Amino acid sequence: MQRLPGFRDFYPEPLPAADVWSADARQYIFDKWRNTARRYGFREYDGPPLEPLELFTMKSGDEIVGQLYNFIDKGERAVALRPEMTPTLARMASSAERNYKKPIKWFAIPQLFRYEKQQKGRLREHFQLNADVIGEADVAADAELLALLIDTLRSFGLTKEDFVIRLSSRNAWQEFFSKRCPDETKAYAFYQAVDKLERETPENSAKKFSELGIALDEVTAFIKSGEPTPELQSILQNLGARGLGEFVKIDYGVIRGLAYYTGVVFEAFDVKGEFRAIAGGGRYNNLLKLISEGKVDLPALGFGMGDVVLLELLKARKLLPQFSAACDVFVLIEDETLRGDSLKLIQDLRAAGKCVEYSLTPSKGDKQFKRALELNSVATARIERGASGELSVRVKRLSDRQEQVVSVAEVFDVVEALALRAQS
Amino acid sequence: MQRLPGFRDFYPEPLPAADVWSADARQYIFDKWRNTARRYGFREYDGPPLEPLELFTMKSGDEIVGQLYNFIDKGERAVALRPEMTPTLARMASSAERNYKKPIKWFAIPQLFRYEKQQKGRLREHFQLNADVIGEADVAADAELLALLIDTLRSFGLTKEDFVIRLSSRNAWQEFFSKRCPDETKAYAFYQAVDKLERETPENSAKKFSELGIALDEVTAFIKSGEPTPELQSILQNLGARGLGEFVKIDYGVIRGLAYYTGVVFEAFDVKGEFRAIAGGGRYNNLLKLISEGKVDLPALGFGMGDVVLLELLKARKLLPQFSAACDVFVLIEDETLRGDSLKLIQDLRAAGKCVEYSLTPSKGDKQFKRALELNSVATARIERGASGELSVRVKRLSDRQEQVVSVAEVFDVVEALALRAQS
Repeated sequence: MQRLPGFRDFYPEPLPAADVWSADARQYIFDKWRNTARRYGFREYDGPPLEPLELFTMKSGDEIVGQLYNFIDKGERAVALRPEMTPTLARMASSAERNYKKPIKWFAIPQLFRYEKQQKGRLREHFQLNADVIGEADVAADAELLALLIDTLRSFGLTKEDFVIRLSSRNAWQEFFSKRCPDETKAYAFYQAVDKLERETPENSAKKFSELGIALDEVTAFIKSGEPTPELQSILQNLGARGLGEFVKIDYGVIRGLAYYTGVVFEAFDVKGEFRAIAGGGRYNNLLKLISEGKVDLPALGFGMGDVVLLELLKARKLLPQFSAACDVFVLIEDETLRGDSLKLIQDLRAAGKCVEYSLTPSKGDKQFKRALELNSVATARIERGASGELSVRVKRLSDRQEQVVSVAEVFDVVEALALRAQS
Repeated sequence: MQRLPGFRDFYPEPLPAADVWSADARQYIFDKWRNTARRYGFREYDGPPLEPLELFTMKSGDEIVGQLYNFIDKGERAVALRPEMTPTLARMASSAERNYKKPIKWFAIPQLFRYEKQQKGRLREHFQLNADVIGEADVAADAELLALLIDTLRSFGLTKEDFVIRLSSRNAWQEFFSKRCPDETKAYAFYQAVDKLERETPENSAKKFSELGIALDEVTAFIKSGEPTPELQSILQNLGARGLGEFVKIDYGVIRGLAYYTGVVFEAFDVKGEFRAIAGGGRYNNLLKLISEGKVDLPALGFGMGDVVLLELLKARKLLPQFSAACDVFVLIEDETLRGDSLKLIQDLRAAGKCVEYSLTPSKGDKQFKRALELNSVATARIERGASGELSVRVKRLSDRQEQVVSVAEVFDVVEALALRAQS
């Protein structure tokens, strides 16, 4: 009995096999994502992983269906596992926006699904940080969102030597296109040709552009110019004031494949160019109107950052912490007549917030001590009975084997002090 | 465009509508679940939400298919959204158990899916805390798991006035059955009749039992006796030593519907009997062997606690905190020539771990201040330029409007002190 291809099992570390994933690393990433988004005042939301199929085809057309986990449910509804979060967000925000002050700043950590051709390292699900700002047309919102993206990556210890954000603008390309081709219906075909430029032969690209009356040389010259538009200039200035200017560069080679982007677009890449994009996003000012069938018209922008490329990058840069079992106190029970008192001590230490382990069944003292070491316990604690029957607790710090014998009432303070020293 | 029936949208509070759910309450519940499980030394795992259909039919037979979100994927595989976590756990644990010391103590917080008939308040997905112990046959493991269940509920402020765990034993029922009916193949039909006793007419129950040669009176007398078996006695003693004895009572009326339970079984209920079971679980010593097709034979036990009944109970007992926006510092920008300096201050405060908000675009001072209040900010901070051009920061605590004017370098300490006072 095997898991489905392209899906992941997440195990506690140390990992039992090469083809499984770390539940500890996943939680580490989620915690950083959540904490950084909260510092920026973004609030969490979530929607269903299963949505009506139409929610996704509405935005991206029917060709997306080939890449979806879609099916007919037992109520004859056409449904799909969500391939991205933005349509759900647009649905949720447009139905409830009147109850929230603008700008709405929201984030989510959804699991997303795509039925993609099986290739090495090509998964069929991943998790993604989604952060979006709704209801603010000014590029100050774009700058705020980019600052969040930069600080999210920095929270993992990544620096400007590790990643860069390539910043571009659909507006700049729109202007470029309008000057050369009068047929606005062909704009999306043009954007797609620009998007594929880096993966396409020059001959094929030249052919696609010439059909629109545009020379490949003009396109590459525009990309090379890197001249920021006034709105991009304003974003650079805003990020510069925050001390984040060096994480961003203008790069018109980025245009984003999806049809719905309307303004600033961007992608985050590792500087060495070893990995696929770490994150990507931009403005989609018309999407809420589309999803709400005209009822709500609010500007919006957002980005998505997946867990798979990020994890690869953190591993390559040796920025992932060592994950392992971590126990505050291992309670040794060597005298079985003291098991009841030991259980009480375990209960009280856990009630005080400590992670406590012990041997569930009678076991030799040296075996228990070995287990305490394996669990990276900060200390062991053993109840002892004195000559006159009074109980005391022998607490041993495992880093230097230093011991103290204290009363049961004193254990909490001693353990607290040890834990603090272990952290520092 | 609507979400699918039986699925939930999770919004930040205050909630915009009566039929949506709180993302804040969800995260509050997940945090308590995770923290309590960790204090008990349980480690997190997760598997795919989509699994081969056979993983679920293997254990529960084909009749479960009617309640599943199952379909044929584009690779012609019969797949299903997971209706419960135990089969995935059994698959994962049996394939990797050699790499982990026993007992394995693991937890997960999966989203689970069932295609159930639409009824009021009947959902098609929910989240569940799953905690399991694998590789320990002694009832000390059952006691440890029950203690975790009790402390998980207590972590929300629930007391013995609010919930009770009804503890039973398949072994006790097995013994009862064997004495009266020699045909072991009918044992499961007997368990199911006992499970349905509270929801069935006495006539129907009596009929089902008499077909097995058992009188209804014998069954109800056994339930009434409440005499703990030696293994239940041992669990009561263990929980008593921890001071948790009053949260558990023997109740043979509980037997659990699923076929795979083998020993101790239990369910947690609200004392007033207003809600469905809060949690349920037990021993399933044969499941790993079944799922691994005989390769791994380890005793195991676990419980599941769903988010929906728990949330209803916490609401009814007024134990849910008030959730709202919570911001540490709102930076007021009234002089637009100071926006750059203000952005730097915002960046530095966020880098120091603070949640910081501000007006993205120029806005009147009183409007900004109003927004700071709406966001429940602890303090506002406003950069001011002195006569000789030097910058200072006016920090105002919003609880009592007390003000301090400090240098930019001092802001962090002042904000830290304010935040601490706001918490206490």
